[in-house]
Amino acid sequence: MVSKNQIKLVKSLQQKKYRNQHGLFVVEGVKTVRELLDSEFKGYAIFTTDVSVFDDQDEAIESVTEAELRKMSGLTTPNTVLGVFEMAEAGIIDFSDWILAVDDVRDPGNLGTMIRLCDWFGIEHLICSENTVDCYNPKTLQASMGSIARVQVGYTDLEDFLRKTGLPIFGAFMEGQTIYQTKMPEKGILVVGNESTGISPEVQALVSKKICIPQFGKKTAESLNVATATAILLNEIRRI
Amino acid sequence: MVSKNQIKLVKSLQQKKYRNQHGLFVVEGVKTVRELLDSEFKGYAIFTTDVSVFDDQDEAIESVTEAELRKMSGLTTPNTVLGVFEMAEAGIIDFSDWILAVDDVRDPGNLGTMIRLCDWFGIEHLICSENTVDCYNPKTLQASMGSIARVQVGYTDLEDFLRKTGLPIFGAFMEGQTIYQTKMPEKGILVVGNESTGISPEVQALVSKKICIPQFGKKTAESLNVATATAILLNEIRRI
Repeated sequence: MVSKNQIKLVKSLQQKKYRNQHGLFVVEGVKTVRELLDSEFKGYAIFTTDVSVFDDQDEAIESVTEAELRKMSGLTTPNTVLGVFEMAEAGIIDFSDWILAVDDVRDPGNLGTMIRLCDWFGIEHLICSENTVDCYNPKTLQASMGSIARVQVGYTDLEDFLRKTGLPIFGAFMEGQTIYQTKMPEKGILVVGNESTGISPEVQALVSKKICIPQFGKKTAESLNVATATAILLNEIRRI
Repeated sequence: MVSKNQIKLVKSLQQKKYRNQHGLFVVEGVKTVRELLDSEFKGYAIFTTDVSVFDDQDEAIESVTEAELRKMSGLTTPNTVLGVFEMAEAGIIDFSDWILAVDDVRDPGNLGTMIRLCDWFGIEHLICSENTVDCYNPKTLQASMGSIARVQVGYTDLEDFLRKTGLPIFGAFMEGQTIYQTKMPEKGILVVGNESTGISPEVQALVSKKICIPQFGKKTAESLNVATATAILLNEIRRI
């Protein structure tokens, strides 16, 4: 039987303030909960209206009613499973491959898509500036489609991080060199920036190579969305 | 002075049924309204709380109060400008370049992103299956960022369309040939499919070349989102 206080705690985790206070976050849906249980993340509590789903797991599964799940859920139409997990501690960064650095991205859907892209392209580390949207935001997690289980996302002073790395730093700019004529090294850091203002001037100053995705046709299009631009750039990095 | 009936008409255009009945659709925001005024689309009515914005335009601009605009708008926080435009009639398709064909895409944000991508990569025609989400859906238009002004979007029996074209038909499949080893011809049709089920069996049967975006790393990631996959594939098509 789930207590009122537990319900209140879980519901509060929709807000960043309480996520940070408790060091916990919520994911919903059986597939994503399973992926997180199979990952380095530590389960704190799993609530489900259908315990049979978790037959083979030794985690503590709590049976709840649909009404209880609805009270805990951030979704209009809750799933049958809701998992509460402990946030990951900062791990050691592996500098032997490409790293994606995100400067002040605000839209949770964009960050989630980038996490999913890192997973697809085998990029293990995604480093965010401190003003980037929270990777444990429910909308970020939803867009990441479980990829948070396999990509390490960290928040740090991005300028400081970039200043200390010895790797070449690539940044996407409208006036950069076309990616079709840029030789991508075996490792480096790719920086992408804010939806409206792009990469901040402070971070721009640290970019060693400005690149761009060529525009075709009438050349009157808006710049590409940051998540779709990241898709193209990560593909270029992996391209052989 | 805007009438109650006008307000009712504009508000009804949030729904596909009324858009089709009246042959009209709504865009919000000064930038997008301007782009549509500069395009082939015919303006039906432009409402604004700030007429000074349209000094140089000879279109009929109607001044409205904030309260009136709020009643017409589909946004929680309305902009200062709302434009009503006539839907485009089907134009003649130019088969001398690549065409993007969309089979049963349901998410308006995904279709809007694809329209924006076509604009960026100079793809003039986007052909949708009849069960694809409406290109005049407000969420599609919002994600397309005005690119609907420059890309021709049409709805048709996709199987029939593909059967009649003499162009090579490329489709994205998990088991296709890697794009890094595929030579893209100068013109063709790129087909992308539904968010969950991919390209339908009927359309699959008409694909002449199955291609894929290689996956790296742990290979456990979800398939790529259809809009980000389209970004990568259109980049490959234009790549020189």
